[in-house]
Amino acid sequence: MKFKIGICQMNVLDNKEKNLAKAEKMIREAAKNSQIIALPEMFNCPYENAAFPEYAEEYPGKTTRVLSSLAKELDIYLFGGSIPELNNGTIYNTSYIFNRKGALIGKHRKIHLFDIDIEDGIRFKESDSLGKGDKITVVDTGYGPIGIAICYDMRFPELIRLMVMKGARIIIVPAAFNMTTGPAHWDLTLRARALDNQVYYAAVSPARNNDASYQAYGHSALVSPWGEILEQANEKETILYGEIDMDYLKKIRTQLPLLLHRRTDLYEIIEKE
Amino acid sequence: MKFKIGICQMNVLDNKEKNLAKAEKMIREAAKNSQIIALPEMFNCPYENAAFPEYAEEYPGKTTRVLSSLAKELDIYLFGGSIPELNNGTIYNTSYIFNRKGALIGKHRKIHLFDIDIEDGIRFKESDSLGKGDKITVVDTGYGPIGIAICYDMRFPELIRLMVMKGARIIIVPAAFNMTTGPAHWDLTLRARALDNQVYYAAVSPARNNDASYQAYGHSALVSPWGEILEQANEKETILYGEIDMDYLKKIRTQLPLLLHRRTDLYEIIEKE
Repeated sequence: MKFKIGICQMNVLDNKEKNLAKAEKMIREAAKNSQIIALPEMFNCPYENAAFPEYAEEYPGKTTRVLSSLAKELDIYLFGGSIPELNNGTIYNTSYIFNRKGALIGKHRKIHLFDIDIEDGIRFKESDSLGKGDKITVVDTGYGPIGIAICYDMRFPELIRLMVMKGARIIIVPAAFNMTTGPAHWDLTLRARALDNQVYYAAVSPARNNDASYQAYGHSALVSPWGEILEQANEKETILYGEIDMDYLKKIRTQLPLLLHRRTDLYEIIEKE
Repeated sequence: MKFKIGICQMNVLDNKEKNLAKAEKMIREAAKNSQIIALPEMFNCPYENAAFPEYAEEYPGKTTRVLSSLAKELDIYLFGGSIPELNNGTIYNTSYIFNRKGALIGKHRKIHLFDIDIEDGIRFKESDSLGKGDKITVVDTGYGPIGIAICYDMRFPELIRLMVMKGARIIIVPAAFNMTTGPAHWDLTLRARALDNQVYYAAVSPARNNDASYQAYGHSALVSPWGEILEQANEKETILYGEIDMDYLKKIRTQLPLLLHRRTDLYEIIEKE
């Protein structure tokens, strides 16, 4: 089984209307060539603690209604990047996923919040403004189970492994690395997660907006289960198309059976309730 | 605290005497510039299933006596790569570690056996000839706890994470990737384990011996806790020296506190007894 993913590396502005219009335009374009479409982290909102409350929406809200209706109209699976979600007074960094009928089939609240303070580099404290998710998310689709993580979540191999143990063979990660961590760790982390877990791994960044306070690294990519970067963007706005081939994935898992060779008699990753 | 590791990427021949003499020569040389010295996987024996029984030794044996006495004489920590160990009729791929007094402070039997069959690439079935280890190995040294894995073991993020949870800040891995998996996965896996776990990671390969049936990739390396390759060999015989700086490691773990940010309320890796 082969199918295509359209990765929308959109340029996010400090204007929700314009962001929604741009997302719609890119989704409509991507739907001509792909069955699964993915948006970046915080695609309707600047990546700034101060902006999250202003842009946040309860569900269902303006943004999620647009996503649902586009998924249905265009007959696509839509992995809606993430937006600030308001729920009972707390804001979460949340991804909503819609099926081809426009139904919500899952949502992921970012589990690991990004608190970093690098000497001469990036400083950001997400936990100043956001609440933490507490669920691991794998959604069922006509293309098999797909795992969703958001940005800093991907730093934690336990999370991706648990998704794979739940059956995920594709992982989609809306993410906005920056100009410190991007060059140092973006390709490395994408490729390692794909290789170790023998999955297709799609990472969806916003384009770099030189006017923004937080400079996204860009470089959205699709990585193969052998750890190879199949397609990759530079830092500019673009739609990246990649082919996912489940027969190839099966072949890799047969030839180098990493998942079978795990010594689960010696160790195990457990999910806590 | 800074100190040096000497990584002996030695050329392994089909002659135990010559291999031991070469190892001794390299260890003596490396001891002039380093406090920790590491040998490659199967350094006294060709990497062939047929050779393992012939070269195997019970402990203590010829090879381990040489290692112990060199560690004491040269006042070094000696991570003795690996050799075929004979124990109760089973052969293991085993690493012996000696302290500066020549005392055995730990041994690691390869946990994950390398059974692979890549189309148009490498085919090898270690489990045809070897038994599996069943313990995770972290040894205490004057430089802190150090984790030891052997080659294919490093493919499994659970194992390295468990070592780090036991306190390891340095991981030493004797390993012989090949000409299929080496170019594709060697640097990637070394760097990802170092980065994800914020450890110094030393991988010690044999040099490439074009006369051998199994062509080692070489490219021994020392990787930093930021995931950077600090020093790396090509495929030829050489001693690679690298500096380990525990203050730098501490700084990385403070600025980007990945290990603290693990959501152990949601998941955990457990070691089974």
